[in-house]
Amino acid sequence: MKKSLVSSGHDREQPAPISNVRLVVEYDGTGYAGWQRQKGKNTIQGQIEKAVHALTGEWRHVQGAGRTDAGVHALGQVANVRMKLKMPVAKLVHALNAHLPQDISVREAQVADEGFHAQLSAAAKEYRYTVLVRPARPARDRNTVYHLRQPLDVGRMRSAAGFLVGEHDFCAFCSESRLKKNTVRRLHDLRIEQDGEFLHVVVRADGFLYNMVRAIVGTLLLVGQGKLEPDEVRAILESRDRRKAGPNAPALGLALVSVSYGNI
Amino acid sequence: MKKSLVSSGHDREQPAPISNVRLVVEYDGTGYAGWQRQKGKNTIQGQIEKAVHALTGEWRHVQGAGRTDAGVHALGQVANVRMKLKMPVAKLVHALNAHLPQDISVREAQVADEGFHAQLSAAAKEYRYTVLVRPARPARDRNTVYHLRQPLDVGRMRSAAGFLVGEHDFCAFCSESRLKKNTVRRLHDLRIEQDGEFLHVVVRADGFLYNMVRAIVGTLLLVGQGKLEPDEVRAILESRDRRKAGPNAPALGLALVSVSYGNI
Repeated sequence: MKKSLVSSGHDREQPAPISNVRLVVEYDGTGYAGWQRQKGKNTIQGQIEKAVHALTGEWRHVQGAGRTDAGVHALGQVANVRMKLKMPVAKLVHALNAHLPQDISVREAQVADEGFHAQLSAAAKEYRYTVLVRPARPARDRNTVYHLRQPLDVGRMRSAAGFLVGEHDFCAFCSESRLKKNTVRRLHDLRIEQDGEFLHVVVRADGFLYNMVRAIVGTLLLVGQGKLEPDEVRAILESRDRRKAGPNAPALGLALVSVSYGNI
Repeated sequence: MKKSLVSSGHDREQPAPISNVRLVVEYDGTGYAGWQRQKGKNTIQGQIEKAVHALTGEWRHVQGAGRTDAGVHALGQVANVRMKLKMPVAKLVHALNAHLPQDISVREAQVADEGFHAQLSAAAKEYRYTVLVRPARPARDRNTVYHLRQPLDVGRMRSAAGFLVGEHDFCAFCSESRLKKNTVRRLHDLRIEQDGEFLHVVVRADGFLYNMVRAIVGTLLLVGQGKLEPDEVRAILESRDRRKAGPNAPALGLALVSVSYGNI
């Protein structure tokens, strides 16, 4: 005992323990180059790591459940970070938010199991894509909806969506499939909800390929506009050819709503 | 006939007729000093008048149904403007929006009766005030909700709201009642709707006094926080004394939802 105290000159007398902290984060992605830290760019991950540094004096990797693209929003992104907790975890929400810009907010903070990993432990994610359908462009929601002037045939879009639910190879809806060993995903749910002038495409899956939601939405919009038949979407899925699907719908309409973890 | 043609040297050969145009306008009031044109300030009315000028070459008064304060939003503000229509009115939405900033959007334009006056012809207006109740501050909705950290007792707020519905002298809920001859208004509806972490106070009346919605909401929030009893709101109303009511709730949570006209 005594020997270790003497020999270990670098240790503090009461080293603060490192906790694996799980965060739920909301952000308006408009002003950001996406989630992932990039040199010289303003990113969500970069801002949260800066806030953790401001609180603890240490630079720590903040691991997100999903890397949202530039302009994509989140209501319930989940992240974990191993950090020294110098305060009760309940106070961390307010303490981190005091160091974050107004368009990023930590909604929840709790101590997670040592093995918890926001991305690898995730069981399912839900995204919502919002379209505003009316002649006049949006003002209030100009950064969070994709604006289309012409009406969409929602019945046709729902028929097409039916072909995508279930376990499939979504290679045709992935921007960089060659980087992926496995492009099979299970799509639990793909709903189209109407709320006045707003159309929400809600999609839940065990995982998503790069740009998968935006490619699915871009394809469903072609169906709603009468430019594709609903059953052509089945053929596109089976083709496993990205060039056959529709374009990626613009980033601004997309939000990561929630991430679920089997046992949490 | 001939004489008038000769003498009136300033007339164009085919003078464009002046139409009384009714507009429905949406705006994010965050960046504006309110609706009303003011020298050297950025206002909604000023921006729309600038857009009309850009289209027609003439400065015309744009009459709003209500003068919203700085920071207050609108989904369905109504305005009328007497202007030369050089295009079918259906094209005016797009033409005006091309000259307006992104946080103001004309949603509808139609030719109204000569006597139509957006403010004086209005039969009722509906406002919505939104509160976000949760520990963490908002990110996505940071400019459109009032954030409170502590829970509110909605049942108590609803009881208090019951005393305000109907025809009353709302002098106690008016910031500058001495400027008004008549402070009696008919409050058709005052609902409190819960939607997850959001609380909406929806209020419809035949007219509103200056800051009336914000004073009503500020008072109901005191009731929800247990700082006032519901039936004290009746006494406040009867006192006709502004100092007895709660403070004005902050502007950013308020939106003018719609204006209705008896026969339209």
